[in-house]
Amino acid sequence: MEATAQEVDAAVLAAHAARGALADRTVRAAFLRSAADGLDAARDGLVETADAETALGPVRLTGELARTSYQLRAFAGIVDEGAFLDVVINHPDDTATPPVPDLRRYKVPLGVVAVYSASNFPFAFSVAGGDTASALAAGCPVVVKAHPDHPALSELVAKVLRRAAAHHGIPEGVVGLVHGFTAGIELIMHPQVAAAGFTGSVRGGRALFDAAAARPVPIPFHGELGSLNPVLVTEAAVAERAEAIGAGLAGSMTLGVGQFCVKPGLVLVPSGAAGDRLVKSLTDAVSDTAAGVLLDHRMRDNFVAGVEERARLADVDSPVTPGAGGEHTVSAGFLTVPAARLTEEGAYDLLLEECFGPVSVVARYADEAEASAVLSRLPGNLTATVQVSAEEAAGQGRGPELLASLTPLAGRVVVNAWPTGVAVAPAQHHGGPYPATTSTSTSVGGTAIERWLRPVAYQNAPTALLPAELKDENPLGLPRRFNGVLER
Amino acid sequence: MEATAQEVDAAVLAAHAARGALADRTVRAAFLRSAADGLDAARDGLVETADAETALGPVRLTGELARTSYQLRAFAGIVDEGAFLDVVINHPDDTATPPVPDLRRYKVPLGVVAVYSASNFPFAFSVAGGDTASALAAGCPVVVKAHPDHPALSELVAKVLRRAAAHHGIPEGVVGLVHGFTAGIELIMHPQVAAAGFTGSVRGGRALFDAAAARPVPIPFHGELGSLNPVLVTEAAVAERAEAIGAGLAGSMTLGVGQFCVKPGLVLVPSGAAGDRLVKSLTDAVSDTAAGVLLDHRMRDNFVAGVEERARLADVDSPVTPGAGGEHTVSAGFLTVPAARLTEEGAYDLLLEECFGPVSVVARYADEAEASAVLSRLPGNLTATVQVSAEEAAGQGRGPELLASLTPLAGRVVVNAWPTGVAVAPAQHHGGPYPATTSTSTSVGGTAIERWLRPVAYQNAPTALLPAELKDENPLGLPRRFNGVLER
Repeated sequence: MEATAQEVDAAVLAAHAARGALADRTVRAAFLRSAADGLDAARDGLVETADAETALGPVRLTGELARTSYQLRAFAGIVDEGAFLDVVINHPDDTATPPVPDLRRYKVPLGVVAVYSASNFPFAFSVAGGDTASALAAGCPVVVKAHPDHPALSELVAKVLRRAAAHHGIPEGVVGLVHGFTAGIELIMHPQVAAAGFTGSVRGGRALFDAAAARPVPIPFHGELGSLNPVLVTEAAVAERAEAIGAGLAGSMTLGVGQFCVKPGLVLVPSGAAGDRLVKSLTDAVSDTAAGVLLDHRMRDNFVAGVEERARLADVDSPVTPGAGGEHTVSAGFLTVPAARLTEEGAYDLLLEECFGPVSVVARYADEAEASAVLSRLPGNLTATVQVSAEEAAGQGRGPELLASLTPLAGRVVVNAWPTGVAVAPAQHHGGPYPATTSTSTSVGGTAIERWLRPVAYQNAPTALLPAELKDENPLGLPRRFNGVLER
Repeated sequence: MEATAQEVDAAVLAAHAARGALADRTVRAAFLRSAADGLDAARDGLVETADAETALGPVRLTGELARTSYQLRAFAGIVDEGAFLDVVINHPDDTATPPVPDLRRYKVPLGVVAVYSASNFPFAFSVAGGDTASALAAGCPVVVKAHPDHPALSELVAKVLRRAAAHHGIPEGVVGLVHGFTAGIELIMHPQVAAAGFTGSVRGGRALFDAAAARPVPIPFHGELGSLNPVLVTEAAVAERAEAIGAGLAGSMTLGVGQFCVKPGLVLVPSGAAGDRLVKSLTDAVSDTAAGVLLDHRMRDNFVAGVEERARLADVDSPVTPGAGGEHTVSAGFLTVPAARLTEEGAYDLLLEECFGPVSVVARYADEAEASAVLSRLPGNLTATVQVSAEEAAGQGRGPELLASLTPLAGRVVVNAWPTGVAVAPAQHHGGPYPATTSTSTSVGGTAIERWLRPVAYQNAPTALLPAELKDENPLGLPRRFNGVLER
């Protein structure tokens, strides 16, 4: 099953050979829509296979598949509109210093993109997921490294994509698929691979990032690695909504057995009676949560060991003890710790690292300065959340400073809601300072397409030779910047 | 003169502390304009110092200074307009899969930017050059590593920038300056440095790129390293304009004593009589070129040695021998070689490497296939140029295929003109596949600002807490995408 070096090479060369067939935007958009239709049509078989391989359950998987085909169609719309081409046209200008010749710029596809699938999203961050959808939308063929947790599903999904490609006269090699750890390394080193997308662990992602950077010709590596996703509950918020916040947190941290990269992993709660009420509410709600199955046994082992190591620290309590549930399951829980323990480097830094699975750390803070001190020590995050009071939401008290203080921490700042649930939308940003991502890009939402493009400018090119996208008369009706003016 | 580790640390911390003062876009734009005014006002003294340190001559230096202040003002205009903020707003949408909450995205500054100055542009790619101007425009303080070829000028220019900053209440630490090789390494490793810009050699740039990637927290490294800048002269073009092309090439390759990163270094000319006429014209024009002074003795040594090593290869001729001129000068020249020598890996690969200074290699090709074979072997370039006939320019003959065939080679494709001269314009792209640049970005033109920003999304944030840039009513009149519609 594991691809040999020759098989990886063949997959990359086949993808490279298919890139010309993706050049036409109309064909590309139609291909993406056919792929979405193909996934929807194959739903029952796909969900069954995915459930057999991952135990995520048909409800979650059916929803994730719907998200995946929705995402493919959203990128088809982005391809049609063409704003991502970033067309800029300058006619000659002798008044500039130095004078400007005729210059016309737009973006072209980078080439073959290597996509590394995630374990926890067998559809939405795997073979037909956001990396693949955005790369194909940009005009880049892909070679996907399947995740070992769902190899059969990966093959089925690749088949759906290839059938859709063939339907539009695109060679099936436009979506390559390889299995195996070594194949993943071969892939990132292949000279014809021009960029990579990755969703997974800090350790695995950093190893691939390092390999991408060390190539004779380094390539962009867009990895989404890990995130603690801190939550700050203000004094005013807990005074107002302690129980609701506790229950909401329980729902978010246990959703999908805590296997989301945006699971809230550290929650700063004021010490005192109101904070105690939040913890009580959280205790009740988490206690009521049924045990669940993690994606694979390695994750279960890591979860159990990670929780035990954390719980062993002095001053760490477990109002609801997370850990091994039944033979295959784990039970949700949370730990508490005085925030003062987290303000300086030491053994407690373990509590500032992501622990994949249904556990959160509730740090009780004495005052704002202590909470800020903890936040200032965090590495980069995908999300940062703040729970505020009605008055703060209206701009009173600490309100005005809160967004600005959380912005340096994360790529998405959530107010009075929870970070789990990552909508597919133009304004989405699913990324953040390292290690949340290895670049400044997003892996979800319309702007994810920017990762797979590079600009090129044409100077003094005769109209007859220009691509239609760059002609003055704008035959394709593209949004553009024309002699300084934004045209839509 | 060389900065100690403590001095580098102090410069970075001072820059970091100044970032809040850059947050206001109105202040930022005013600062950039004052900096431009300050440079213009100090022109005579700056040009005198620059000429004493570089021997580039007052004419070139005065022009370069004008370009530099023009560029600062251009970025002020970009800051005013605010399109670079890339505002995208989505109201909640329950019809999406999954439903979309209120999401609002824009871009925020990355933090302190390290700028590595170029030798060959003491103004335009140094302390107040494109990297600094675009970083300040993005809201990022800078710490500049001065180039050892012009330390006194670097100090003077930094003083002008700091005076402009102080005039607008911005701490002078917003523009740091350090000298010394070791200081440059300390700078790229500093935890508070968030990104870097570099213009220089492949060797130096790659070393810093590797250091940036190997940090515990890797940072974006936007380096412009080296480029051969191939020129293809078609059969039809040479039949039509052999003499004009030869003379034009001579002007471009000897401009500024060949010390531009976009100097045409490899020219593919058809074999046969028309091509011979081009070579004759080039010979006449280059022979008439006065000897010139290179930027420093190291460069002169490298040029002389590089030319000698190339000329020593069998089948390489020197119609005009480049090399050591007078005691301090070098004389321009060019080499010729049968293109067939360049189609396969071997000793002749040396001719496909940049040789800094006034020399080009003219490769004579037998047919289109041979020319294409040479082009397909080139590493990435800043520019690729094609000289075409009037018929080809009108879309006849080879015309339609030429732009598409050159696009994979470079970031800028020039038709019937020469690559030297890099205009400051929104449509400019000064970058290209590695080793031309280490990223997909440009170091010249309006979009250079994108290098120093990262997106952040706010979810469910109450209006009272939103920055003005993200409010529905658009009080700042920014271009944006609002519920899918592009507003300008």
